[in-house]
Amino acid sequence: MENKHYALQMSVRDYECDIQGIVNNSVYQNYLEHARHQYLKEIGIDFADYAQRGIHLVVVRAELDYKTPLQSGDRFTVSVKMVRESPVRFAFLQEISNNSDNRLVLSARIIGTALNPNGRPEIPPELDALLPAAS
Amino acid sequence: MENKHYALQMSVRDYECDIQGIVNNSVYQNYLEHARHQYLKEIGIDFADYAQRGIHLVVVRAELDYKTPLQSGDRFTVSVKMVRESPVRFAFLQEISNNSDNRLVLSARIIGTALNPNGRPEIPPELDALLPAAS
Amino acid sequence: MENKHYALQMSVRDYECDIQGIVNNSVYQNYLEHARHQYLKEIGIDFADYAQRGIHLVVVRAELDYKTPLQSGDRFTVSVKMVRESPVRFAFLQEISNNSDNRLVLSARIIGTALNPNGRPEIPPELDALLPAAS
Amino acid sequence: MENKHYALQMSVRDYECDIQGIVNNSVYQNYLEHARHQYLKEIGIDFADYAQRGIHLVVVRAELDYKTPLQSGDRFTVSVKMVRESPVRFAFLQEISNNSDNRLVLSARIIGTALNPNGRPEIPPELDALLPAAS
Repeated sequence: MENKHYALQMSVRDYECDIQGIVNNSVYQNYLEHARHQYLKEIGIDFADYAQRGIHLVVVRAELDYKTPLQSGDRFTVSVKMVRESPVRFAFLQEISNNSDNRLVLSARIIGTALNPNGRPEIPPELDALLPAAS
Repeated sequence: MENKHYALQMSVRDYECDIQGIVNNSVYQNYLEHARHQYLKEIGIDFADYAQRGIHLVVVRAELDYKTPLQSGDRFTVSVKMVRESPVRFAFLQEISNNSDNRLVLSARIIGTALNPNGRPEIPPELDALLPAAS
Repeated sequence: MENKHYALQMSVRDYECDIQGIVNNSVYQNYLEHARHQYLKEIGIDFADYAQRGIHLVVVRAELDYKTPLQSGDRFTVSVKMVRESPVRFAFLQEISNNSDNRLVLSARIIGTALNPNGRPEIPPELDALLPAAS
Repeated sequence: MENKHYALQMSVRDYECDIQGIVNNSVYQNYLEHARHQYLKEIGIDFADYAQRGIHLVVVRAELDYKTPLQSGDRFTVSVKMVRESPVRFAFLQEISNNSDNRLVLSARIIGTALNPNGRPEIPPELDALLPAAS
């Protein structure tokens, strides 16, 4: 199964900017999460449905490299690439770029797992099938 | 000058939902503000530019009627209609409706003013020109 | 049963401030909600527990009067007074004041109801008992 | 100059929890930032004042390890330890622990720099003096 690049178009909302006039650091995690959830939904995995069934997709580690800040009015692209990290972990490689000049805004590596209703790490079969084997 | 209806398409982001699985009350103000700022930008008034020039568009009163909550995955429409409220006040009449069934999600009346660099209420001429006289 | 005034001490967090250098409009609803939930917990009603049992405390209308904005570093007090509004509605009368000069920052009237697991308005008996009869 | 451990007491606000009933991933960055800013203020460095003077304290990389989630009602402690990373970079080593059982909630390494009014990395002298030389 091929793991194509997914990309979502978004734009800055003024309330996401802080005293410095730029998007606040924590907001980028909102952007990244929204793009991941949209990507997962597109491949058939609904975060909210999973939560209701007691399956919790959780982040175990996030690495975020901030390059150039977004400002009021900016339009940007958030990319998502999902790869297998280990038998019970997967990673999302994500980038945010500014549409006006294609400059890299942020690059991130978000490592996650799924917790079953007993709270144990266990990748659901339909998600497992989508993940290429770790090389 | 005619004051046409403006409408913005948006969709719920999962991080905007709370323990109850619905969009948190305060988030609707974010949606409303974003639609107002987009509308103002379209008619030539940039909130961030104004702030840099020392002109602060501020909300003095908000009335929000919550009808039916938005949930994860919902797509919705936020409308904006600006009317004059008094010589130094304007009001935004706004509605949010759920795209799936056109049901009203929220209706709001947001009253605002502009503060000049001295902190006194004063509607900038270019905004004043866009506001029909109070009837 | 007497309905005493409840007050919560809080302070502004920098990420709550926006481009204008003041607390963003929507954040005040977060402050008000947090104070209401703390108040309810103190009188024996836990919002999160209720949600898990299928009882949803919901806001049906919010009226917010913005007086003077809070800024980075400000400490403030959020008061809560709960009154009965109708057989199936209650209201929270809330004020936020700046601790440095006691100036009123915002006054609000938040009207709520409780939805039972069937989604019908129904005030749980333990909450009903705490509400003085509408006069 | 010794670099003592700083710790801030906080508690979860219900609106910070998401569909899963736990604090949303991005909110931890808010907690960490608030603790850093309080710490900096205590040692004489005010984030908002700096921003007004054109000096921007910015995050260049964040590494966050999520251990056990916080939930509604939890009280927690956020620690801050600042170390020098390079001539123009400093790092904050931070931990969040749950007060009820002292369990580690999250550990983080946040690397920052200061941009002068020309947008070039330059640690202001008063901050530089507080940072032990890189060993």
